[in-house]
Amino acid sequence: MKINTNDLEYIARGAALLGTGGGGDPYIGHMLAKIAIEEYGPPELIKAEELEDDALVLTIAMVGAPTVLFEKAACGEDLDLAIKKLSEYLGKKVDALMPIEIGGINSMVPITVATRLGLPLVDVDGMGRAFPEIQMVTFNVYGVKCTPVCITDEHLNSLIIETANAKRAEELVRVSSIEMGCSVAMSSYSMSGRELKDYGVHGTLSLALEIGKAIESGRKDGAPLLSMMDYLKTTPYYNKCKVIFSGKVTDVNREVRDGFTQGYCIVSALGEQQDEVKITFQNEFLIAHKGNTVLAIVPDLICMIDSETAEPIPVESLKYGQRVNVLGISAAPIMRTPESLAVFGPQVFGLKDKFVPIEEL
Amino acid sequence: MKINTNDLEYIARGAALLGTGGGGDPYIGHMLAKIAIEEYGPPELIKAEELEDDALVLTIAMVGAPTVLFEKAACGEDLDLAIKKLSEYLGKKVDALMPIEIGGINSMVPITVATRLGLPLVDVDGMGRAFPEIQMVTFNVYGVKCTPVCITDEHLNSLIIETANAKRAEELVRVSSIEMGCSVAMSSYSMSGRELKDYGVHGTLSLALEIGKAIESGRKDGAPLLSMMDYLKTTPYYNKCKVIFSGKVTDVNREVRDGFTQGYCIVSALGEQQDEVKITFQNEFLIAHKGNTVLAIVPDLICMIDSETAEPIPVESLKYGQRVNVLGISAAPIMRTPESLAVFGPQVFGLKDKFVPIEEL
Repeated sequence: MKINTNDLEYIARGAALLGTGGGGDPYIGHMLAKIAIEEYGPPELIKAEELEDDALVLTIAMVGAPTVLFEKAACGEDLDLAIKKLSEYLGKKVDALMPIEIGGINSMVPITVATRLGLPLVDVDGMGRAFPEIQMVTFNVYGVKCTPVCITDEHLNSLIIETANAKRAEELVRVSSIEMGCSVAMSSYSMSGRELKDYGVHGTLSLALEIGKAIESGRKDGAPLLSMMDYLKTTPYYNKCKVIFSGKVTDVNREVRDGFTQGYCIVSALGEQQDEVKITFQNEFLIAHKGNTVLAIVPDLICMIDSETAEPIPVESLKYGQRVNVLGISAAPIMRTPESLAVFGPQVFGLKDKFVPIEEL
Repeated sequence: MKINTNDLEYIARGAALLGTGGGGDPYIGHMLAKIAIEEYGPPELIKAEELEDDALVLTIAMVGAPTVLFEKAACGEDLDLAIKKLSEYLGKKVDALMPIEIGGINSMVPITVATRLGLPLVDVDGMGRAFPEIQMVTFNVYGVKCTPVCITDEHLNSLIIETANAKRAEELVRVSSIEMGCSVAMSSYSMSGRELKDYGVHGTLSLALEIGKAIESGRKDGAPLLSMMDYLKTTPYYNKCKVIFSGKVTDVNREVRDGFTQGYCIVSALGEQQDEVKITFQNEFLIAHKGNTVLAIVPDLICMIDSETAEPIPVESLKYGQRVNVLGISAAPIMRTPESLAVFGPQVFGLKDKFVPIEEL
């Protein structure tokens, strides 16, 4: 299928939900992709299985603190340059692009670059959600090399990084991205078609599109949450989902620290109840606690949505007084294996609580 | 000429003097080069004029805080990798190597790599002394591109950096080098033979060798300082030189901050006099003050030598009680032009005093 400008709103909204608070503001990503499609035409969205086994696929994303991404978005040429430089460095022609994660801006950026460079976009990513660090993808869990990584900034400065492992690449990308202004374009995980078929989380751009549509159609009936939940239950990954809390945002503690947007927010029950939940984030929502009880925990998805419109609320847009529903949604099975939990389970984020699937909480 | 292991001691000593307190401990550099020559044979030292105009020459150096270099020297493979990666990135065969600066370790490192890779070494550098930042070379002053820069560490992680200007490259190299442990191998300023002939500070490895020999022969007569000063007066660059102070080191304030070895030392007169001088450094010695009077100022060379043996003392080896002579030595004329002073004059280091040539102080 072709991705048209009409689809962007739905994909952006669905991806903002799956971005679990991170992945950058969907509005910025939406605008970038819209302008690009208007100029270069709609890009082709293909399935991973359509790729030759020896095809070369690169990821493209923005890296940094979403709070900064919001003000310092990509200019387009920086994104193109990351792909061009990495392709030259590898000495190979690029056959297709893909998102590294599904999140507000990072679902839109690959659409933007695919149309700018006239390359097909693969309907797949490395997590079916968003994560703050670049080693936190299934590709890394299953042995695909993260590097060479290319990062570029809006002045068209570029870095190509090669490291022994993905965690070290993350560390070097992070210090460089901070020096480059906390928001840079990145291409990484150059992959063969075969690797992508084996280790990707498939169909996630389409899923984002359908989630966006379900919210939209629900709004017409005055029940967007219900419509979205009904759709999620039919999906291969997100079928265990529930509203874990409803209330009002009563506190937001948010700062840009070590190159990430970090902190927590408190959602308090409305009315007579004294209940509240605390949701901790590092770019994305990591854990929701009611007192000492865990309501949902990474890598399962924690999402905040507006209680009336079901619009997903990214971390950087949280503010006092918002009426919200807090959702817990199951991650893809490949994201919940012991190998995966070792790379992006709760302990990696310094949490003391163990991972328990949302359906058991 | 061939550089033999016997020459290394002299080059190391002469380069330690010209390193003006920085450039890394000469002992470490000496050992690295000695081991390499014993294994791979003596490298050829050639003059820049022997190069074809379209020859490709790369610099090779260690970058970081000398205090750390002292403990975390290069392993050899990291140095080779910086050249190999940059050559691949440029898509060209390397014809020769050169030092970027003349300083303890950074005169020895190019010898080490030249012999390891079987490449000729050019008798030239970009300053005829040592400086803390990579934009501070004549090549940059006269428009040679600093990037692509390749930096590597002892784990063979690598970064290739391309920036719009050399100062930005310095900033990105610096944050990356700090993350990589404050001591990394670097190749930069890929240059044509023509550029090198036009903008290099020529003959500086040979000068270092002869300075080392002059100190050595002077020691046999019990007057190494005199012998060295006599030789310096015959050189094309260093002929304005004087002892600006003699005394005892009575205070050293030295820390690794922002990736550099920074601070100052106080040298107090011996005997009845109350005189003292304060010498400020950022890797290298920058300025010598007696009260408010400037005795010598960057880019002229300030050197500390042992008052008995005339052994140059690097910043990281300064300690209480050392008897020292403090020398002021003229920099090469190309280093004193208004264009050069804009890149590495006193104001660049945050000093309020203006540059005055040593011969006028």
